[in-house]
Amino acid sequence: MRYGLVGGAAGSFIAGVHKTAIDMISAADLVAGCFSRDHEKNKAAAAGFNVAPDRVYPSFSEMAEREATRDDGINFVVITTPNNTHYAACRAFLENGIDVSCDKPLCLTVDEALELARLARDKGLLFMVTYVYTGYPLVRQARELVESGQLGDIRVVMAEYPQSWLADKAEDSGNIQAMWRTDPEQSGVSCCVGDIGTHIENMVHFVTGLEIEKISATLTSFVEGRLLDDSAMITVKYKGGAIGHYWPCQVAVGRENGLSLRVFGTEASIEWQQENPNVLKFARKGHPPVILTRGGPSLGEAAARWTRLPSGHPEGLFAAWANIYEAFCNSIKNKIHNRAFDEFYLYPTAMDGARGVKFVHDCVKSSRADSAWVDGTPPVL
Amino acid sequence: MRYGLVGGAAGSFIAGVHKTAIDMISAADLVAGCFSRDHEKNKAAAAGFNVAPDRVYPSFSEMAEREATRDDGINFVVITTPNNTHYAACRAFLENGIDVSCDKPLCLTVDEALELARLARDKGLLFMVTYVYTGYPLVRQARELVESGQLGDIRVVMAEYPQSWLADKAEDSGNIQAMWRTDPEQSGVSCCVGDIGTHIENMVHFVTGLEIEKISATLTSFVEGRLLDDSAMITVKYKGGAIGHYWPCQVAVGRENGLSLRVFGTEASIEWQQENPNVLKFARKGHPPVILTRGGPSLGEAAARWTRLPSGHPEGLFAAWANIYEAFCNSIKNKIHNRAFDEFYLYPTAMDGARGVKFVHDCVKSSRADSAWVDGTPPVL
Amino acid sequence: MRYGLVGGAAGSFIAGVHKTAIDMISAADLVAGCFSRDHEKNKAAAAGFNVAPDRVYPSFSEMAEREATRDDGINFVVITTPNNTHYAACRAFLENGIDVSCDKPLCLTVDEALELARLARDKGLLFMVTYVYTGYPLVRQARELVESGQLGDIRVVMAEYPQSWLADKAEDSGNIQAMWRTDPEQSGVSCCVGDIGTHIENMVHFVTGLEIEKISATLTSFVEGRLLDDSAMITVKYKGGAIGHYWPCQVAVGRENGLSLRVFGTEASIEWQQENPNVLKFARKGHPPVILTRGGPSLGEAAARWTRLPSGHPEGLFAAWANIYEAFCNSIKNKIHNRAFDEFYLYPTAMDGARGVKFVHDCVKSSRADSAWVDGTPPVL
Amino acid sequence: MRYGLVGGAAGSFIAGVHKTAIDMISAADLVAGCFSRDHEKNKAAAAGFNVAPDRVYPSFSEMAEREATRDDGINFVVITTPNNTHYAACRAFLENGIDVSCDKPLCLTVDEALELARLARDKGLLFMVTYVYTGYPLVRQARELVESGQLGDIRVVMAEYPQSWLADKAEDSGNIQAMWRTDPEQSGVSCCVGDIGTHIENMVHFVTGLEIEKISATLTSFVEGRLLDDSAMITVKYKGGAIGHYWPCQVAVGRENGLSLRVFGTEASIEWQQENPNVLKFARKGHPPVILTRGGPSLGEAAARWTRLPSGHPEGLFAAWANIYEAFCNSIKNKIHNRAFDEFYLYPTAMDGARGVKFVHDCVKSSRADSAWVDGTPPVL
Repeated sequence: MRYGLVGGAAGSFIAGVHKTAIDMISAADLVAGCFSRDHEKNKAAAAGFNVAPDRVYPSFSEMAEREATRDDGINFVVITTPNNTHYAACRAFLENGIDVSCDKPLCLTVDEALELARLARDKGLLFMVTYVYTGYPLVRQARELVESGQLGDIRVVMAEYPQSWLADKAEDSGNIQAMWRTDPEQSGVSCCVGDIGTHIENMVHFVTGLEIEKISATLTSFVEGRLLDDSAMITVKYKGGAIGHYWPCQVAVGRENGLSLRVFGTEASIEWQQENPNVLKFARKGHPPVILTRGGPSLGEAAARWTRLPSGHPEGLFAAWANIYEAFCNSIKNKIHNRAFDEFYLYPTAMDGARGVKFVHDCVKSSRADSAWVDGTPPVL
Repeated sequence: MRYGLVGGAAGSFIAGVHKTAIDMISAADLVAGCFSRDHEKNKAAAAGFNVAPDRVYPSFSEMAEREATRDDGINFVVITTPNNTHYAACRAFLENGIDVSCDKPLCLTVDEALELARLARDKGLLFMVTYVYTGYPLVRQARELVESGQLGDIRVVMAEYPQSWLADKAEDSGNIQAMWRTDPEQSGVSCCVGDIGTHIENMVHFVTGLEIEKISATLTSFVEGRLLDDSAMITVKYKGGAIGHYWPCQVAVGRENGLSLRVFGTEASIEWQQENPNVLKFARKGHPPVILTRGGPSLGEAAARWTRLPSGHPEGLFAAWANIYEAFCNSIKNKIHNRAFDEFYLYPTAMDGARGVKFVHDCVKSSRADSAWVDGTPPVL
Repeated sequence: MRYGLVGGAAGSFIAGVHKTAIDMISAADLVAGCFSRDHEKNKAAAAGFNVAPDRVYPSFSEMAEREATRDDGINFVVITTPNNTHYAACRAFLENGIDVSCDKPLCLTVDEALELARLARDKGLLFMVTYVYTGYPLVRQARELVESGQLGDIRVVMAEYPQSWLADKAEDSGNIQAMWRTDPEQSGVSCCVGDIGTHIENMVHFVTGLEIEKISATLTSFVEGRLLDDSAMITVKYKGGAIGHYWPCQVAVGRENGLSLRVFGTEASIEWQQENPNVLKFARKGHPPVILTRGGPSLGEAAARWTRLPSGHPEGLFAAWANIYEAFCNSIKNKIHNRAFDEFYLYPTAMDGARGVKFVHDCVKSSRADSAWVDGTPPVL
Repeated sequence: MRYGLVGGAAGSFIAGVHKTAIDMISAADLVAGCFSRDHEKNKAAAAGFNVAPDRVYPSFSEMAEREATRDDGINFVVITTPNNTHYAACRAFLENGIDVSCDKPLCLTVDEALELARLARDKGLLFMVTYVYTGYPLVRQARELVESGQLGDIRVVMAEYPQSWLADKAEDSGNIQAMWRTDPEQSGVSCCVGDIGTHIENMVHFVTGLEIEKISATLTSFVEGRLLDDSAMITVKYKGGAIGHYWPCQVAVGRENGLSLRVFGTEASIEWQQENPNVLKFARKGHPPVILTRGGPSLGEAAARWTRLPSGHPEGLFAAWANIYEAFCNSIKNKIHNRAFDEFYLYPTAMDGARGVKFVHDCVKSSRADSAWVDGTPPVL
């Protein structure tokens, strides 16, 4: 297969990660791109990626149109630009009949997100939103444990995502990542909840299947002069009576990329940490906790399906990326849309993206209303 | 010195812990008691504790009065009965001029708590509320790090206390601890927040010195038919702008006694877990985290003062109990009242107890008001 | 009961630990002592311990003789002096009919050790050698797992004890502990193997019951000018075909008191670390490892019998000391000699001590013979 | 670039890992192969790898000869067959002027190994032996810490590699990996030492630069009827006085792939574990240990050079493979031979391979001589 890239010029980090993952599974070749609106940067990036000059485009709309007409046009596009450009770019490719893989958060408003989801659905196109952490085998194992009923009824979810990289005003010292993420125009209504709170929301939803009913959130901007939130306390009530707490934070000095999930049910609990993703603690009531390891004994089919190395040979984040891309690319080949809770948990879709965008807006709304409970139900297509 | 015990008959667990700690430092002999209102149990407990029959009393009031008149009367009393009896028992001993060590939560209402604090103050008596976890050397080290300014301004506090022992309806199967803790008459307005939420509140206050301004709490009773809360999500805003989250939970299957504290400042963060209390993670901005160990290098005076064994020779909870009792008993000998943030952090006092009781009521009040922010400022004597 | 102390003057650390443990269980009162050969230090220590002047003795022999004749004489003696005095002191008390608790290593030669063991046996006296680490509940759990056959046949034992306190020439800078331990006259033929290698030997024997057949050891003195070993590599062959490796080391910079044990059998393995003694990893073939916790689910009777606090409330080294003293003192009361592998593993005896002394000599012998295999079988009474 | 593969038919695991790593960095395309001596398997593997039928060869010698003559011939070959075929295969490609990447252990005898090294040197060819674990960034950081003198003089090295996969007689139940590794004809004089003991030897050498002088080894075959060793205790004396212990083991029930390294110097120590490769413990004398993290603060140039993801985004074994292949492929492009301790530690070479083969033979020799010390000095070209 062939794919194109929107974004990825000098200074971008995540585009290279997408490419490495796709290369790792030899799923597709990067053959076209609109890497930057700056002509020189666009050309330079193309050279770096070995993309032929005639397939380097000045705009994503031109890229979408022209690739759609080529016999050897791209099978899918990867979009890794700042949030505010996602909607228009995704739309351009969908309208030209090209499957899309887009970074999260999907876009700036729920309406935009639903429009993209609808467009994809109506045109029979595939759409992945790259919530990569669901690609880890043991996250899929966690989901299988919940689904199989081994946790009983879920009571409490504790999830968090502490980072430290915005503890100082990095947006003032030339950090490009910090600049756009803290800029309301490019990032939308939220920095921290949008950037990493959505990962928590997606992870919890993926593993537990729980549906949020109400949200009470308190967003804070600790760094003086920062225009958006850099930390948040979010309490959620789920349909059915469970309660959860999400703590995304970008000023947690000493922490790196600490996404972690703990789910407590009536019969058992699970604990998983992204920074050491090859182990999953599983504790049944009245039994000592067991340490499940990727590739190790007692795992289910989902974990086995998405494991590339034997136990004890650690898999990292690249392998998680490879997993969601393998699912996505296989689905493209076979035109299989993702379905919830089957086929060993394929890839995150546009509706995952839409749910994330609504989550961000719900949090902001609650926070502005002095942390009052607001409706947190997922959007419906 | 000599002391007496109120509570501690068969089925009590904590009375024996108090005694072991006091024995461990040879601070005082147990010579009197009112161990149970049941005459036979009272006698049996006395025999077990080697307390002479003439100093076994049918009521704490008689005990207080008669011990106060003896030449060899007790120097202090230890009160380990259910919450609802604390106030009257403490009062009886204070009125008879006897120093008091009482379990937490101190009593059922803030007024009662303040009355006890006032009584102690006015009579020049010492009053310890046994928030034992502040006795760990590395908790004192954590406080010293905060005080010394090494964390900078505190931004976020994450504290939790997951346990699993009330995951089922233990109060229906003869578990005495569960029976009284889930009974509003004996336990007061809260089970979980009162029993372990107060430990969180005290730990955070002890280490950070932060003063709560507002509280938004959601208390839940997951076990059907339970009359009080068994889990809570509590968000707190502190004076000065920091924010915190406390999660006490007694239905967290797979967890034992997981009190833990994380404090994130502008310059550094600390992390400590009660179940492995001999290590403290300390991470300064821009530096790799260091693992401070009890007795190890780079500790301050407070940790050194309250350490009994060389590094690598683990100290457990008994040593923490011994520490607060050593501070209390030394204070009795020298009639030194505890003072905040000096003398290497002595022992928790009646005002710590009062603050805890108000915290419980504030949480309940917020929860009943649909988690609205309520005033959470500490009580004033 | 009453006991006396030999050793324990200023500068001694371990005597206070013995006393704290005995106090913790209210097992006996310290009423007599020969704390130092220096008269002033002897008096000062007595005052510190609240021992009456008429029961402070200038020599252990006088102490033994005079205490033996008193109606209120001591029930047992605790000996905490340097190694070279153990034999004579133990002998004095045994000959006067007094039960003995002595620090390890028991004495300087195997003959001495066996003589003490014989004396105790012939006089019907109890003799504890304070290999304290066997007092931890999870070490007893480990033994129960081996005994019950759950590990299958043992194949490999990996045990180690890294410390760092002798990484520099502490004996030259006034460190009393270092001075006598590195002095052949006081310490015997070995420093490191004698001081902590014996703990490894005892721990392995206690848990596995394996009997050493052959030893190949390489002792090293890394610090220039040091007269005895400060590190050793010891390979052992056990009766039945298992193999083991012991690594005691006192120059392991960065390590504190890292005694750890791993036992691998045909069916399962266990791993335990002294610095976090409340957990025991247990891994059965074909199953994910489980984390057993002190006080937690799935433990056997031995661990339960010697546990003082509920799970999650950490017990430390004092509790392990209390356990061996509780077993010893109960045995004194009931005149029960320790028996192997029953009564929930009582206390380490004179024969444990003798085995340790022979182990030290076997290691030294092998090392001097260029690490040749030497006979390592245990001594026989 | 283009490469060919020898080995990799159905049942092979490691060939796919080589390919994934090379794909991950888009370094070269797999265009030729001799995947199996079985014609059908050879064809099937070729189809799986998308290798054109005319570049699938019945023998490695034919492959070497014919690829050498093509204009679009392979730039290098990857050899992943059992040990006994390495020598002939490597030789064939070297003689035809093709750079080689070969699995470890390099071959069956030291003479063979040196012959290959000489051949490569004389022909100016590059030769990598895939000791992959040296590719981890924090292993390179460890080396930099040693080189920079921060550990002082090294005294003790403790290294181990416990696995459990040969705890039963897997060679009798159709496990292909087990069958050839336990077969002296295919595996050579050793199974366990050859397969994983060599990884220990290489890791220690890479990090510390220490040169072995003497070896005392005890090899054991725990599983009845097994023809080669499945566990070993190896003590080594290094030039300069340091001592080390290596424990490779394939019957360690409960362990997966536990390569770990600890190095203790006069000034500091380091500890690293392959199963959680993104952290490195570094403890300086008199300071609390610090936890270095891949991508985190305080790392040197080597770790930075070979890091692909920001801190907290775990890298696994694939990234380590990618690192050695990136170094190897860059060296091919620029015809740079690896040099010790410079250019940020490139890739392991034929002389690493030769040293490993001699290590295996030294261990076997010592073990057969009742664990006597034997010469363990590295081979010289």
